Amino acid sequence: MEAINLANKLSTFSEHWQPRTVGQFNGNDLMVAKVKGEFVWHKHDDTDDFFLVLQGRITIQMRDGNVTLGPGEVFVVPKGVEHRPVAEEEAHILLIEPSNTPNTGDPATAAARRVV
Amino acid sequence: MEAINLANKLSTFSEHWQPRTVGQFNGNDLMVAKVKGEFVWHKHDDTDDFFLVLQGRITIQMRDGNVTLGPGEVFVVPKGVEHRPVAEEEAHILLIEPSNTPNTGDPATAAARRVV
Repeated sequence: MEAINLANKLSTFSEHWQPRTVGQFNGNDLMVAKVKGEFVWHKHDDTDDFFLVLQGRITIQMRDGNVTLGPGEVFVVPKGVEHRPVAEEEAHILLIEPSNTPNTGDPATAAARRVV
Repeated sequence: MEAINLANKLSTFSEHWQPRTVGQFNGNDLMVAKVKGEFVWHKHDDTDDFFLVLQGRITIQMRDGNVTLGPGEVFVVPKGVEHRPVAEEEAHILLIEPSNTPNTGDPATAAARRVV
């Protein structure tokens, strides 16, 4: 049993918008991701989307307005709400999603889960 | 809709070992806590116990060994595993628990949930 060092996990890959699973708890996947540029507009019909910024800055665009997050800031996109994360410079984020979330066919949820 | 700034939330209280709920997602409570000194030995029979250190350092004592966490480090105590968190100096942590976790009568789970 040992600590999960999020920065160490992030140092093992460089691809953007490809979350890696670093742990699990209570049926949730704990993931880290590097992001830069614009993701696609999408929504999750059945799950809230949890974002915590570890480094850098991201903006979560929504149809009704934007939220910008820096280190130590959290935002939860409620289920069903269309959003698009964007990052002008590379940012590192922590994501939490229910494990085995059904693949909706949406490009944003179609990425295979990888473990680091 | 706005970001949840964890440091700002932590600045609103000073008590140790009294987690405050700062958000909810997918049936989970997102909580922040200030800790210092020794908590009590306890376990959660039905839930894994998620810890992320935001500031300072904590040690999670278990019967089979200890894990020490610094900023940006996560540890999940598996359900049913007895543990005691301790912090020599004040530390700030992020906790995630299923909302409405039944109160087991254990002192460690008997604290009322407070929202900030």
